[in-house]
Amino acid sequence: MTSDYFLLDTDSTADRDGLRHLRLSQRWNTPLGRPNGGYILAAMLRGLGEELSAGEPVSASIDFLAAPTDGDAALLTRRLRLGRRISTGRAELRQGDRLIADLTANFAADEARRGRSTELGTPPNLPEPSECADPRSFMRAAGITGGIADRIEYRLAATPGWADGSPSGDPTAQLWQRVAGVSHMDRIAMALLTDAYAPAVMELGETASVTVHLSVHLYRRPSPGWIATKLTTRHLIDGFHEEDCELWDEAGSLVAQSRQLALLA
Amino acid sequence: MTSDYFLLDTDSTADRDGLRHLRLSQRWNTPLGRPNGGYILAAMLRGLGEELSAGEPVSASIDFLAAPTDGDAALLTRRLRLGRRISTGRAELRQGDRLIADLTANFAADEARRGRSTELGTPPNLPEPSECADPRSFMRAAGITGGIADRIEYRLAATPGWADGSPSGDPTAQLWQRVAGVSHMDRIAMALLTDAYAPAVMELGETASVTVHLSVHLYRRPSPGWIATKLTTRHLIDGFHEEDCELWDEAGSLVAQSRQLALLA
Repeated sequence: MTSDYFLLDTDSTADRDGLRHLRLSQRWNTPLGRPNGGYILAAMLRGLGEELSAGEPVSASIDFLAAPTDGDAALLTRRLRLGRRISTGRAELRQGDRLIADLTANFAADEARRGRSTELGTPPNLPEPSECADPRSFMRAAGITGGIADRIEYRLAATPGWADGSPSGDPTAQLWQRVAGVSHMDRIAMALLTDAYAPAVMELGETASVTVHLSVHLYRRPSPGWIATKLTTRHLIDGFHEEDCELWDEAGSLVAQSRQLALLA
Repeated sequence: MTSDYFLLDTDSTADRDGLRHLRLSQRWNTPLGRPNGGYILAAMLRGLGEELSAGEPVSASIDFLAAPTDGDAALLTRRLRLGRRISTGRAELRQGDRLIADLTANFAADEARRGRSTELGTPPNLPEPSECADPRSFMRAAGITGGIADRIEYRLAATPGWADGSPSGDPTAQLWQRVAGVSHMDRIAMALLTDAYAPAVMELGETASVTVHLSVHLYRRPSPGWIATKLTTRHLIDGFHEEDCELWDEAGSLVAQSRQLALLA
């Protein structure tokens, strides 16, 4: 029985004037020993949403400014707009005198999500999760153990090239993901899952990359179950690269997409 | 002889404590009679960059909060990080007591742009600009005249479906763009060009869309000449949609890419 550490570890307590307190847990650390960026985003987005009380997030845009550590943090939130259809807020995450991250997010009530839909994309072409492999064994062999590797469940159709020591040269990845212990994930969990797996540039032989900026569109609350994930890098320029992510639920609907700018470490 | 209105109209004057003053020109108005979002972004980005003095922009992320009008505006800037490789700042654009837009941008000195490059994308497949048509005649017929239609030059291989009253159903566009009167465009002009043409959803029969959020990656200063532009919308969900833009210079290099979240009007 796994607890809902996601809800626990992204929770923050309201103080006054938009200030909130939270504790970054080491349960979401990356192999580099720092809290994962997707986890930071999720905690900030949840706290900002509770301050604004203006519906669920529709977009979130974050700049990562300094390396976080697990432990206490302060979230300074501010409302920028209270709109008929969309409300907007900002949040800064601070640890001591260090500014860790800066977030701007838009929120919309369900009534604002009523226009037409046209889908021209397609979900990743993956076997059922039950027919895919749990990558924990090769992740352990690659030194990826504990922290976020215990908090997110992954299912892969094949072992990625980088895990075999032979990067494919094709910086893409397709996999299933879900947050361990969460039976029905929300939009905030989708924000986490856009930045919770190994960067696609590992298939170009790179071993580490630091996210500078991440923008996420949160279109739908997913249906219960696994999330089919597509990661793609197409442009690597002077050490900077983008990574696109699409998240599709088991019902075959796109629930979120993201783009990040990262810098090879 | 065309003047460099782009430089003139994106200029701002430093006051103190990061405050700058500027005047939004009606020369960049959209057909709806409001300053274009790409122009707002460019003016804010230029002012913030001058305050920070930390290299040229590498990414810019803006949320549009209220409709701008031409006329006086105040730009409130703040430095968030002065880094070895990347520096970051924020800027708010205000007109009277109205908050118009909120920008976060990253800047990098040339020395920080030295890593490897790998390009997996391809430029739009377009005839030479001299073999393409100037769309001004059908734009005028569609009521798109003056303002930004006089400030950006466009060259199209074919008349778009929406201009003929028969949207194609394929929400993409490929065209050449350049800023009129600017012989060598900079990264800030690229930020403008990511949001300076008709939205791709017009090929789905939509007539108007409002940008909520726009994120731009600015990889390179372009070579002199035209910019090959690729616009694509793939997901339209409950009235919200993304639009991706790629900008390629005449030398065949990707210079910028963007993604926006917009809401059908």
